Amino acid sequence: MKVLADPQVFQQQSRKWRTAKKSIGFVPTMGALHEGHLDLVRACRKKNDATVVSIYVNPLQFGPKEDFGQYPRTLQKDLDLLQAEKVQAVFTPSDKEMYPEGFSTAVEVKGPLVGGLCAPFRPGHFNGVATVVVKLLGAVEPDRLYLGQKDAQQVAVLKRVIRDLNIGVETVVCPTVREHDGLAMSSRNQRLTLEGRKTAPVLYKALKVGKSIVDLGERKAEKVLEEIRKVIEDEKSVKIQYLEAVDAETLAPVWEIKPGIMIALAAYLDNVRLIDNIII
Amino acid sequence: MKVLADPQVFQQQSRKWRTAKKSIGFVPTMGALHEGHLDLVRACRKKNDATVVSIYVNPLQFGPKEDFGQYPRTLQKDLDLLQAEKVQAVFTPSDKEMYPEGFSTAVEVKGPLVGGLCAPFRPGHFNGVATVVVKLLGAVEPDRLYLGQKDAQQVAVLKRVIRDLNIGVETVVCPTVREHDGLAMSSRNQRLTLEGRKTAPVLYKALKVGKSIVDLGERKAEKVLEEIRKVIEDEKSVKIQYLEAVDAETLAPVWEIKPGIMIALAAYLDNVRLIDNIII
Repeated sequence: MKVLADPQVFQQQSRKWRTAKKSIGFVPTMGALHEGHLDLVRACRKKNDATVVSIYVNPLQFGPKEDFGQYPRTLQKDLDLLQAEKVQAVFTPSDKEMYPEGFSTAVEVKGPLVGGLCAPFRPGHFNGVATVVVKLLGAVEPDRLYLGQKDAQQVAVLKRVIRDLNIGVETVVCPTVREHDGLAMSSRNQRLTLEGRKTAPVLYKALKVGKSIVDLGERKAEKVLEEIRKVIEDEKSVKIQYLEAVDAETLAPVWEIKPGIMIALAAYLDNVRLIDNIII
Repeated sequence: MKVLADPQVFQQQSRKWRTAKKSIGFVPTMGALHEGHLDLVRACRKKNDATVVSIYVNPLQFGPKEDFGQYPRTLQKDLDLLQAEKVQAVFTPSDKEMYPEGFSTAVEVKGPLVGGLCAPFRPGHFNGVATVVVKLLGAVEPDRLYLGQKDAQQVAVLKRVIRDLNIGVETVVCPTVREHDGLAMSSRNQRLTLEGRKTAPVLYKALKVGKSIVDLGERKAEKVLEEIRKVIEDEKSVKIQYLEAVDAETLAPVWEIKPGIMIALAAYLDNVRLIDNIII
């Protein structure tokens, strides 16, 4: 397994694969790998000759009051996991390699995709994500990009950016991987207290309650969201940041539940921000 | 010669070349082709197996009060010229193909590169250029990008964007091509009156006067610029917009003339905006 930090060196590696007609799949991560990441890696390995994983905690996508400093960093453990998964190469650039002196370019996303959900609470976040992913796609030049449905707004934004900039990569979205009790896997789960960890599955439990109400025939988004909110608010330690019903592709708010609708939420628990979503 | 308008179809064409191990050179233009463009095309053909020219008058890079509507459009003549040059493919996307409904992404450039020269007079211009060129590079996926030194700030900005986003293309900059009387070739020269056309060479004449003063030993940028300004202001019909001495790479203003310095100017003549520059 190659571990490379220089974007230009990585590009040379990718071009060698391309010349040898090997397909390249790419899983971008911020490290602190869990089964959710490994699921993406496995999906990637199945379809591509070379699987590339990047590990980079991107400062651009954290706000000044966010958890950049506290974000878990477990590089050696991550590399061991990826080696066990028989990944061909890991891209681990430094901040200096990603944003050298004189760096002057930003990929910015405008419009309804960044009008709701996480965006109002994380100003600049999706521009930071778009910028780093365009850079990573530049260095890796993959055929396929693997993203997890848990980060639904990120998925919608990146699909749009890739289309808008004519970047020649196919995006593959894999379902959210969950703990046995339903909690969506996230590197941030590590930061929960024991008590918080026990409470956290309420988020998915509540989303499933919402889905079952829809299955019973409810079509008013307001009603469904209200029932979900009740379930979560039974847990006093959980603070909902947002809870919305949106079109899964455009992320536009919806009032009537139809197929292709996503219910998404963010909530604080133990000062840790967790997100989850369910597609109806 | 293939003429293709769909970015995805173009990408398929480029990938066929790549699989066949053909190198791809790319000359982006806004059409209204002149010898300056054809010089880039010839330089491109010498080094690459496939030469691609794009013709697209990009609305994003024109301000609301600029000459988007008046910009010359001569598509059939352009195609004839490119056919005569034995270009392999021309990319002629429509506005709808470049900026479809829901288009939400911009490549934005910040910092000293867009602090002076044309940038303060053309707000949004370089973001529009950066966005369209990143899109064109996505569709064409060339090995080499050909740009003309006449658009010096565009060259510096695009080199920076390409480096910042890790886009795997080599930038080749060709010298400004001039009319016999020294006027830098430009599609906008078509819009000069006969009288204006006779006056316009004063810009380059003045830059050469500046260079000769430097050759005689003058090192103070202020003095050199003063002499250039005098020559231009002898022509009452010419209005200087800016006249600056800058570092040719960083575009930072300089006070002392050294090798690698560029003197650049923009001026209005017949309501037509002309630019030119000289590297010392």
